[in-house]
Amino acid sequence: MSGFREFERGHSTWGNLEKVGPMGMSADPSPRPAVTRADVARYAGVSTAVVSYVVNDRPNKVAPATETRVREAIRLLGYRPNGAARALKLGSTEMLGLVIPDSTNPFFAELSHAIEDAANELGYALLLTNSNGSIATERKHVQNLSSRRVDGLLLASVEPHPDLGRFTESGIPAVLLNRNEPLPGSTSIGVDLVQGARTAVEHLIGHDHTDIDLVMGANPVAPIDGREKGWRHTLAERGLPEGVVYRGEFSRRGGYDAGQRLVASRRRPTAVLASSDTQAVGVLRALHEAGLHVPQDIALVSFDASQESEYAWPALTAVRQPIHEMARAAVEKLLKPGESGDEEHTVFPTEMLIRRSCGCTPAP
Amino acid sequence: MSGFREFERGHSTWGNLEKVGPMGMSADPSPRPAVTRADVARYAGVSTAVVSYVVNDRPNKVAPATETRVREAIRLLGYRPNGAARALKLGSTEMLGLVIPDSTNPFFAELSHAIEDAANELGYALLLTNSNGSIATERKHVQNLSSRRVDGLLLASVEPHPDLGRFTESGIPAVLLNRNEPLPGSTSIGVDLVQGARTAVEHLIGHDHTDIDLVMGANPVAPIDGREKGWRHTLAERGLPEGVVYRGEFSRRGGYDAGQRLVASRRRPTAVLASSDTQAVGVLRALHEAGLHVPQDIALVSFDASQESEYAWPALTAVRQPIHEMARAAVEKLLKPGESGDEEHTVFPTEMLIRRSCGCTPAP
Repeated sequence: MSGFREFERGHSTWGNLEKVGPMGMSADPSPRPAVTRADVARYAGVSTAVVSYVVNDRPNKVAPATETRVREAIRLLGYRPNGAARALKLGSTEMLGLVIPDSTNPFFAELSHAIEDAANELGYALLLTNSNGSIATERKHVQNLSSRRVDGLLLASVEPHPDLGRFTESGIPAVLLNRNEPLPGSTSIGVDLVQGARTAVEHLIGHDHTDIDLVMGANPVAPIDGREKGWRHTLAERGLPEGVVYRGEFSRRGGYDAGQRLVASRRRPTAVLASSDTQAVGVLRALHEAGLHVPQDIALVSFDASQESEYAWPALTAVRQPIHEMARAAVEKLLKPGESGDEEHTVFPTEMLIRRSCGCTPAP
Repeated sequence: MSGFREFERGHSTWGNLEKVGPMGMSADPSPRPAVTRADVARYAGVSTAVVSYVVNDRPNKVAPATETRVREAIRLLGYRPNGAARALKLGSTEMLGLVIPDSTNPFFAELSHAIEDAANELGYALLLTNSNGSIATERKHVQNLSSRRVDGLLLASVEPHPDLGRFTESGIPAVLLNRNEPLPGSTSIGVDLVQGARTAVEHLIGHDHTDIDLVMGANPVAPIDGREKGWRHTLAERGLPEGVVYRGEFSRRGGYDAGQRLVASRRRPTAVLASSDTQAVGVLRALHEAGLHVPQDIALVSFDASQESEYAWPALTAVRQPIHEMARAAVEKLLKPGESGDEEHTVFPTEMLIRRSCGCTPAP
């Protein structure tokens, strides 16, 4: 029992449950009529205030025998402390909705975990949904999150111009994640992909590479992705030959396909920039299968710097997106709009993580 | 506008929103008083039924001009179609709660994505939480999910005997995921780890290995994990020498540490079984850094068969857990308990995916 008590007294990471007052509100007749606090009080022979004390973990206000009686009544009647009634009263569900393309992609896995942490810290839970790269699925999720009255929406859209009509109509704030550029009338965040790609290309040039190709994911949101711009401009500025762009989906498989085409090409580069870790991992596999060595035969730099890239062989030098900072900023823009500044579009800087695949530390 | 319409008419993946009837329920005075359907109706000069038609996407019931007027009223008043009131009425939030140790671990990333799909199919949304391997955090999440009146809980606990007191009290169903063995009074699912390990060890013996060590994650839930039992029993049955167990956390770093100890040991094995892909990836890095070749110097077989293991170098032969089948079964046990059988503990079989790291396909 003492273990149970400790558990019951734990502080909430999702907001102060003690704010809940007695409701005594009875529901309409329905397929599954809700048991009310009043029902529990009647059954246990106590006042509704006593039920509230027990439900809200203030056992010092209630004699142990009474608490036991109330808990027994709760169990027998199947009473659930009423989050929905509370949401009605506060006008808040204390939930945020998140729509991302794919939570099994390490970048989005890390981003959504960081968003959950940031939301929990401010007392909010997270409804996580995957669009699986489909515009139709994304729209369904956005519509449903609106109907569920989330307090805010975080959307990494697969559309260049996502339709937030429902949210705008109802005054629910929304923040677009992973945006390359502003969308008029929306709040959004993104990273400086152009500068990230510049830094990566400059680094490869520093290793004396002059033939630097690009493995580029199909970015549904921008016709020319910032990574592609940064790569192209840097080569031009430095008077180097134009590189080849190998396009494929943002996935291990997409990178593998691109890597196979690259290996088979007549003019093989000495270095490659990949637009994501997942693609770089696929490129690595294609190079290994062809018996090519990284970085000796071909150097490789990627984007994201996920854990997977650290344990790739060789470990990938990569441009890091500041996932935790972005997650915190996105949640604060939703929930504390006054404090987080009123820029429509916030751009985060990137940093290079130097590992083995660029040639800085030769593989053994 | 026609794009917007299409969006509005899309079918819900989370349940039939058309079930919502007019509520006309007014909220208590509160810090953020909720605007009701009646307020919208009054403002737009229509009946609450007309507001419902618009909100519930039955535009064919309403003249376009009226619809425009209602939408304008919704926007001006900041009305949100009332999911919370609906939850009160139906006694259901149409949400499931999920607690896992770490959504950035590829196994749990794939499992939670599959659970979201299975929940969506039945009209439920998913509240995803991470315990980060902490018992205290797990308990807080479980408590909060109970207060939020989810319709069911899916829990991959880091405790051998998770306390589901709150859920049991309120009659909310719960299913334990990733269990090695039954927990009396609970519903749970798991895979046959013993058989999976047997199959893997037999496969390595088939490649003429006799010195087979184990890299084992610290399983907080079972003192001796099924993978360890299966490995040990198979070696004993086949009259082979006892192997060494290298223990470490279920992570890339844990596997890397174990791999470094294994490389430095006086009696180096010719084959290794790793208890997860993340660990195997860490072992691979330690072997690469030591200049050892897989499978020539040391063969390796792992558990999970995640996408990351397919793109490791060399690609990992691995014991696959049937993630999609488990996800579907877990959700059905929560939501259709009558149909999914009444076993307390369901064990799923595993299968071996043959790739390169076992020696079946020599690396180029």
